[in-house]
Amino acid sequence: MSTTSAEGPASQQGMRRANLALVLGAVSRLGSTSRAQVAEATGLTRASAGSLVNELLEAGLVREHGASLEGRVGRPSTVVSLNDRGPAGLGLDVGVEHAGACVVDLRGEVRIHIRRPARHRGQDPRTVAANLAEVAKTALARADELGLTLVGAGVAVPGLIGTSDTVVHAPNLGWHDVDLIGRLRDLLPDRLRALPVEVENEANLGALAELWRGSGARDFVHVSAEAGIGAAVVVDGQLLRGTRGFAGELGHMPVYPDGRPCACGSHGCLEQYAGEQAVLRECGLTGEVEEGERDRIELLADGARAGREPVLRALDQAGRALGIALAGAVNLVDPETVVLAGAYAELADWLLPGMQTELGARVRIRPWQPDGLVVSALRREGPMIGAASAVVQRVIADPSVLRG
Amino acid sequence: MSTTSAEGPASQQGMRRANLALVLGAVSRLGSTSRAQVAEATGLTRASAGSLVNELLEAGLVREHGASLEGRVGRPSTVVSLNDRGPAGLGLDVGVEHAGACVVDLRGEVRIHIRRPARHRGQDPRTVAANLAEVAKTALARADELGLTLVGAGVAVPGLIGTSDTVVHAPNLGWHDVDLIGRLRDLLPDRLRALPVEVENEANLGALAELWRGSGARDFVHVSAEAGIGAAVVVDGQLLRGTRGFAGELGHMPVYPDGRPCACGSHGCLEQYAGEQAVLRECGLTGEVEEGERDRIELLADGARAGREPVLRALDQAGRALGIALAGAVNLVDPETVVLAGAYAELADWLLPGMQTELGARVRIRPWQPDGLVVSALRREGPMIGAASAVVQRVIADPSVLRG
Repeated sequence: MSTTSAEGPASQQGMRRANLALVLGAVSRLGSTSRAQVAEATGLTRASAGSLVNELLEAGLVREHGASLEGRVGRPSTVVSLNDRGPAGLGLDVGVEHAGACVVDLRGEVRIHIRRPARHRGQDPRTVAANLAEVAKTALARADELGLTLVGAGVAVPGLIGTSDTVVHAPNLGWHDVDLIGRLRDLLPDRLRALPVEVENEANLGALAELWRGSGARDFVHVSAEAGIGAAVVVDGQLLRGTRGFAGELGHMPVYPDGRPCACGSHGCLEQYAGEQAVLRECGLTGEVEEGERDRIELLADGARAGREPVLRALDQAGRALGIALAGAVNLVDPETVVLAGAYAELADWLLPGMQTELGARVRIRPWQPDGLVVSALRREGPMIGAASAVVQRVIADPSVLRG
Repeated sequence: MSTTSAEGPASQQGMRRANLALVLGAVSRLGSTSRAQVAEATGLTRASAGSLVNELLEAGLVREHGASLEGRVGRPSTVVSLNDRGPAGLGLDVGVEHAGACVVDLRGEVRIHIRRPARHRGQDPRTVAANLAEVAKTALARADELGLTLVGAGVAVPGLIGTSDTVVHAPNLGWHDVDLIGRLRDLLPDRLRALPVEVENEANLGALAELWRGSGARDFVHVSAEAGIGAAVVVDGQLLRGTRGFAGELGHMPVYPDGRPCACGSHGCLEQYAGEQAVLRECGLTGEVEEGERDRIELLADGARAGREPVLRALDQAGRALGIALAGAVNLVDPETVVLAGAYAELADWLLPGMQTELGARVRIRPWQPDGLVVSALRREGPMIGAASAVVQRVIADPSVLRG
């Protein structure tokens, strides 16, 4: 948090704002704490820290408990902590085969979780928006019951997002230049319509969820799969977006330059070996999926568990291709970890061996450590939780956004 | 520039420091300017801007010209600009076959340039340090003549640099864990020994030189060649260093996964197709180089200019391999440009066609634009100029570093 903006010099106002964030950040880190401990942790005087804590109390961002801290000598002090009945973030998820909603409170806890099957592949944006509005309404009602105040929302979309928040390209939905937020707003109840709503690529949100709730790594390459392969690079706790917002196209890394033709027009892209369609095709399950209603990933996992050779072979090939592409990524950006997420996390048992083999063989200058490859605990919920957490993170980073 | 450090709250002192940098940055951007214009550009009051300019005058960072600005009405004001006789940075270069030194003034101009042939391949660090000390002494004497005060130095090294500024691994010098700065300091005259000296990887410094003096792009992948392949990723004006400082190992991106064995232990690395040794071997020039004293890159350029088929074929193959590796990098980090630098810049005529073909074929989701591939004007001087410019950049970013 800088008090020197690009436009102007450092100011008293900017200082106050930065110190408010400093105090809220300290309460967030310390959990249940006292004004004195906040002063100590931030380097502020007790008077300043106390006055800033009071401001946060008034804004409903922290709450006060009557109890004194145990194990401390002297005058008992009041305990303050982040408010679990205060501002919260709403996350919405456009899955290819479901609509989801969740609510995350200021402490980062997922308090509400809704997932409803839906046919979104190739679906009209209006219908998808209506499905999202439905789960959002349900989430709002439950938030009211819990005393949580929704202060913003985020929508996770399997597609590329343009600078003006439109969905530029979502191949699995069949969308081009869709104003999803506009359509959604029209269908939301008044209290939600008034909130700031952001739309973001699901792979980016999955990576951010991992950043905020994962192992603590701040430099990692995050690779996930739903219908397509989504990847994101996080550098020093920041998402690398790229000049035009196209960073993370791991699915089109050349893995075998003279290999299979890809829908993108190139040859040998990762997607042709580790994409969902490619894996299903490789093990002859494409037909089974198109006829039935089975979850594709469960179908693969069941096949692998049952020891079906074609499935095991296809997943091994996918793991090796992922390993080759990631070896290039690791050599280029030297991350602390590689995180396997989304549907890949549910297939990790069968993908990891091939990935480790290729990473170990191809990352040699800085020798590859097998514990650098981790499996996300958020699995397919990462993007939606990331969308809700982004709202909360913005409040923690700058509490003054709520005081307009 | 943040006034809120990780350790403490925003302070008056921090504000003054940030505003001093704000003013120096404005003078740097505006060129010749007045106190009133500085106030306008920064948003500071005239009184504050004037007082900060006076502080910079006293520190010798800006200088005052008697003249008034033309085309302005009212009381003539004094012109101030960055001091071209003030603080300056010294850059030193450990080439495999030369020692170099240069001096860059506050305005970013290269005022002194020295390059001496030297046999550094497999050379003892003591001898290399002695060669560097010699060119540094010559640079110091010339800086005195120009009225420039050296305030810091940087050393460009073809190797990996550890956290404690040691040269961890420099394969072409044959070094492991060498304290080059320590050895160099012992050989420097007193006035240089007292200065802060930093050592940095040449590829990183070449990329920084491009950032500060190039096309204005702030997101690019920089790929250069001397003895090895050096690459660097610059994101939003910052060098991406990686968790362990190993980012940019483009030379070991898998290009043809089942291809030629590499010295690193892997197969099909870029270095085996586009590295200097690989190209010389491919066109049968290895022997010629080992016997003679010819510059290897000039030898290749001469052969290509003369239309020698094996040379043209080897350079085309190198260009294609570079294109495949860079297609992966572009898909992953979505840079504004790819910069071809160092020795590659001198071979650009023969490398570019193959690179453009592969990039065009393999970067499809965000379609590749041929003007995204640019050739550095700094050629093989980039790292040394980057080392000197880094000193100047630190002063501009925080002028208080010069004030005790």
